[in-house]
Amino acid sequence: MKIGDKNYRTIWFENNTVKIIDQSKLPHEFIIKDLKTVKDVINAIKKMEVRGAPLIGATAAFGLVLSIIEKNDLSFLKKSSEELIASRPTAINLKWAIERMMKKLKGVNSKDVLKKALDEANNIIEEDIGFCKNIGLHGLKIIEKLAEKKGDTINILTHCNAGWLATIDWGTATSPIYHAHKKGIKIHIWVDETRPRNQGASLTSFELNEEGIPNTVVTDNAGGILMQRGQVDMCIVGTDRTLSNGDVCNKIGTYLKALAAYDNNVPFYVALPSSTIDWENKDHRKIPIEERDSNELSHIEGVDEQNKIRKVRIYPKKSKSLNLAFDVTPGKLVTKLITEKGICEASEKGLEGLFK
Amino acid sequence: MKIGDKNYRTIWFENNTVKIIDQSKLPHEFIIKDLKTVKDVINAIKKMEVRGAPLIGATAAFGLVLSIIEKNDLSFLKKSSEELIASRPTAINLKWAIERMMKKLKGVNSKDVLKKALDEANNIIEEDIGFCKNIGLHGLKIIEKLAEKKGDTINILTHCNAGWLATIDWGTATSPIYHAHKKGIKIHIWVDETRPRNQGASLTSFELNEEGIPNTVVTDNAGGILMQRGQVDMCIVGTDRTLSNGDVCNKIGTYLKALAAYDNNVPFYVALPSSTIDWENKDHRKIPIEERDSNELSHIEGVDEQNKIRKVRIYPKKSKSLNLAFDVTPGKLVTKLITEKGICEASEKGLEGLFK
Repeated sequence: MKIGDKNYRTIWFENNTVKIIDQSKLPHEFIIKDLKTVKDVINAIKKMEVRGAPLIGATAAFGLVLSIIEKNDLSFLKKSSEELIASRPTAINLKWAIERMMKKLKGVNSKDVLKKALDEANNIIEEDIGFCKNIGLHGLKIIEKLAEKKGDTINILTHCNAGWLATIDWGTATSPIYHAHKKGIKIHIWVDETRPRNQGASLTSFELNEEGIPNTVVTDNAGGILMQRGQVDMCIVGTDRTLSNGDVCNKIGTYLKALAAYDNNVPFYVALPSSTIDWENKDHRKIPIEERDSNELSHIEGVDEQNKIRKVRIYPKKSKSLNLAFDVTPGKLVTKLITEKGICEASEKGLEGLFK
Repeated sequence: MKIGDKNYRTIWFENNTVKIIDQSKLPHEFIIKDLKTVKDVINAIKKMEVRGAPLIGATAAFGLVLSIIEKNDLSFLKKSSEELIASRPTAINLKWAIERMMKKLKGVNSKDVLKKALDEANNIIEEDIGFCKNIGLHGLKIIEKLAEKKGDTINILTHCNAGWLATIDWGTATSPIYHAHKKGIKIHIWVDETRPRNQGASLTSFELNEEGIPNTVVTDNAGGILMQRGQVDMCIVGTDRTLSNGDVCNKIGTYLKALAAYDNNVPFYVALPSSTIDWENKDHRKIPIEERDSNELSHIEGVDEQNKIRKVRIYPKKSKSLNLAFDVTPGKLVTKLITEKGICEASEKGLEGLFK
């Protein structure tokens, strides 16, 4: 998708180097960063220079490629794969991508292993783009129907960034939005700023601006009153982990918006590639909820009047804070899941009907 | 209540001057500000140097005192009262305090009017302190019961600042908390940071720190997962306007927490002095919801490493934003209202039973 006049993907491989857009600097600076070692990759994931479940998975796959370039050795590869999986605990794609890579590389002799790894990492990327495109085409039908019925601009609320910056291209939650926009349907997006890291304001709104889609940033507190006033026609969010029973583990605050949508009869959709489905799990209490550094709450980065990036402390010095990254939206609050294979109920039956 | 080792109130009158704590500078700077004219008062209310429904009301009452000192003239007084009422549209106390003052001053001759106005403003203040104290004593019983049952620390979640800084002393939502703490009940407070102005982090957590009450700041997104995990025993919030049917208009985001509390069987209390009750209104669609400057979202103030206050822009330059200040929590989601006269259901019947 576009940044300025140029089309980008979020990750690509060039001269034995993984290239990423450093998302921790957006929207204030646009920097392309080189990752040359598996350590670089782990750091990029931990510091959220890459983030979003599908992109984390793809980046980790390329981490294994770099690991092989660094040291073509099975025990090093295994160590790398474990460290990569541990770099963020909640996103299921990370584990999925690493396991897929390791399965593909099993028994491959050392002179072929690099090519095989690179091919598979590229497969993961191309597959993700295809999946996101299909999610968009399925979700487009929902927006088309709403637009036909309303005969006016469709207001869509989204939380966090499940945009193309969270994937390779198109995004998950944003893919129906981009497809609707390209088809000329009038849409306007309510973007939750998504504290503490403000990925909604910094990434989703940034993305939408660059593609010319009207959008308004609101605080995470605002969704309720907007729905009470009838100013939201539908919600679409992404997911970091979808349980086999349809429960959705996504960025903290998603659950609160789903409750408000349910209370106001606003349809609430979750867009996902099947790689985020945790087939072995239907008990959300078993999901490890990542607790991140509390400085992410108490400190914030922005630009001053001279356009210089500055970090400021916004809490009292004495105050403690807790930084949980995800919450769980029960399937009962989700109108439908939008996947690459089609639309289904957020339930075991719904998911199995599409995928098994 | 305490700041450092000294006890303060939020407002007092001295040498023909209204003294306030400039809350827009907290928690980074503690500044006592002089208001000398009715214009000063209007500015202080608009810029939220004083905020919180009861304190806004009391400040407006003193605004009329200053108006009389400035120009002892009925038409100037009327003009002042209209401008004061218009300074913030949602808080009902503002109108209530001004109407109460004007009623008291009706027909009073010009040589007595200043004394009469000052007496009534002081009555409003003393009454508010008494109300808040009684809210605390009634709310204390609820916390005592929970503590007895649990036999362990009671975790209380609150949103925004309905603390003593929002009133004259004690606070509304915090009064039961302060009373419980003084009685030796073990409590821990989850403080919603409360975007966009972060009054939770900047004021509530600051207040609780100064009184030595354990508290943890969380993002506004966090209440849902905390309740899902059983880490919240009760919620208490304040209200800017309570409708006669028990619906509660409070800081934006309150409704989302009430939905989560309801979904997780966590009791949700609203603490209020009867001056916030809008007896003439039981249709929340008729409440004007204040829309504030969108810069309050896109820009944020904090301190840098040199402890210097700096304002930074945190949104992309091209992004639009919308800043609504309040939402409405339907009475059906409120477990009980805690008032100065006792505890009642959040319904017409409940309120009338206590007050009519």
